[in-house]
Amino acid sequence: MEKVNVIKVGGAIVEDPSSLGSFLEMFAAVPGKKVLVHGGGRTATAVAGELGIESRMVQGRRITDEAMLRVVTMVYGGLVNKNVVARLQSLGIDAAGFTGADLDLVRSSRRPAGEVDYGFVGDVEAVRGEMLAKLLDLGVVPVLAPLTHDGQGHLLNTNADTIASAAAAALSAFYDVTLTFCFEKPGVLAPDGAVIEEITEKSFREYVSDGTVSGGMVPKIENALGAIRAGVSRVVVTSASDLCGGTLITA
Amino acid sequence: MEKVNVIKVGGAIVEDPSSLGSFLEMFAAVPGKKVLVHGGGRTATAVAGELGIESRMVQGRRITDEAMLRVVTMVYGGLVNKNVVARLQSLGIDAAGFTGADLDLVRSSRRPAGEVDYGFVGDVEAVRGEMLAKLLDLGVVPVLAPLTHDGQGHLLNTNADTIASAAAAALSAFYDVTLTFCFEKPGVLAPDGAVIEEITEKSFREYVSDGTVSGGMVPKIENALGAIRAGVSRVVVTSASDLCGGTLITA
Repeated sequence: MEKVNVIKVGGAIVEDPSSLGSFLEMFAAVPGKKVLVHGGGRTATAVAGELGIESRMVQGRRITDEAMLRVVTMVYGGLVNKNVVARLQSLGIDAAGFTGADLDLVRSSRRPAGEVDYGFVGDVEAVRGEMLAKLLDLGVVPVLAPLTHDGQGHLLNTNADTIASAAAAALSAFYDVTLTFCFEKPGVLAPDGAVIEEITEKSFREYVSDGTVSGGMVPKIENALGAIRAGVSRVVVTSASDLCGGTLITA
Repeated sequence: MEKVNVIKVGGAIVEDPSSLGSFLEMFAAVPGKKVLVHGGGRTATAVAGELGIESRMVQGRRITDEAMLRVVTMVYGGLVNKNVVARLQSLGIDAAGFTGADLDLVRSSRRPAGEVDYGFVGDVEAVRGEMLAKLLDLGVVPVLAPLTHDGQGHLLNTNADTIASAAAAALSAFYDVTLTFCFEKPGVLAPDGAVIEEITEKSFREYVSDGTVSGGMVPKIENALGAIRAGVSRVVVTSASDLCGGTLITA
């Protein structure tokens, strides 16, 4: 099967012009078919602040009322996405920016209010993998913003890691998919600071129970293992400055 | 040759939720391949105002400094474009929103500062008609925001009428293209308020010299006649509530 790389890059990297530039050069150099998924939370918080709108987060997730939905639609769908696309085009990459509403690529349902009402936040229901595959076959490099839609005309704010996992899983029907999460650290770190080279479903449970892996890294790896179960060949957690290193997560 | 409709809808229509809804239903009902080009100036002015940024217009064109470029990137590329796409998807239309940077669809050069320095404003240089045609052949309905790029990584604010004309002209190499400009009035109006049914290159000059056509309608029709010279089969200027009426502009 032909290889496809789905690469997720966090907000901290895309929102700093210098780290964005070096990341995009590295992304441009990745051979073959590829998809980029980006965040943008810090810019959303900044623009919301300029508009006098307070950002409220619960467990790292943004409460998205109507005013905040307008902000993230502007920031993720417009400001961040289109600047990334323009820069990739200048590097000779035939990028096209999409939200989940475009081409019905990622459909979601609004998360029901439980203990927390996250507002206009979508849980992914379906990725249109065959359309993503058609775009890849045209030579297009899709750049996905963390927004989805409910099919009823409403946009929904959606976690970029989840979109990356769901897109990678959907593409696994057509390609041998590697899903890479880029962030600030060189990989999943042991308490002594060393990069853990490989994590499997089994060793993950041990690492969690002995405290080697904790905090925000736990849901990230759970998400990665879910992608593996959904057909993704391998997941890599690495630094945005080293797409070849990091922690490999496999079955 | 297969027919394609390129339809430009102005800001006043896309920015009022009720007129947008009825317009999009009408657009959805247009048979065959089609492209939508939208404005969004009023929303850009409103969002700029909320951010404490003053909108400055010269001869109806927006002065786009760096702060305003950020606003129009958010508003045209994100807020307006993605809401239109989500609503079209809910109507069963396989819409995908693009700026000129996406897929290098519309490349421009920054307008040199003359008597007026318009700032980050692009004059269209090239439309990638064959990629637009590939999208149409996939069943995609492109929704174009009034932003272009210079190929060097920079977005530029660009007049939506010009983008519609240039896209229609580029598609004329592959299709029989009708270009429709929707706005607030039922067509080009004579001084007595009647719709002028047809305007040709020759009658346009007479209408201008006898004052029948004046003001902002003159550049609009010049733009339309330019599209005809560039291969577009026909241009229609009509109301957003009546895609079948209006003024027909032909060679």
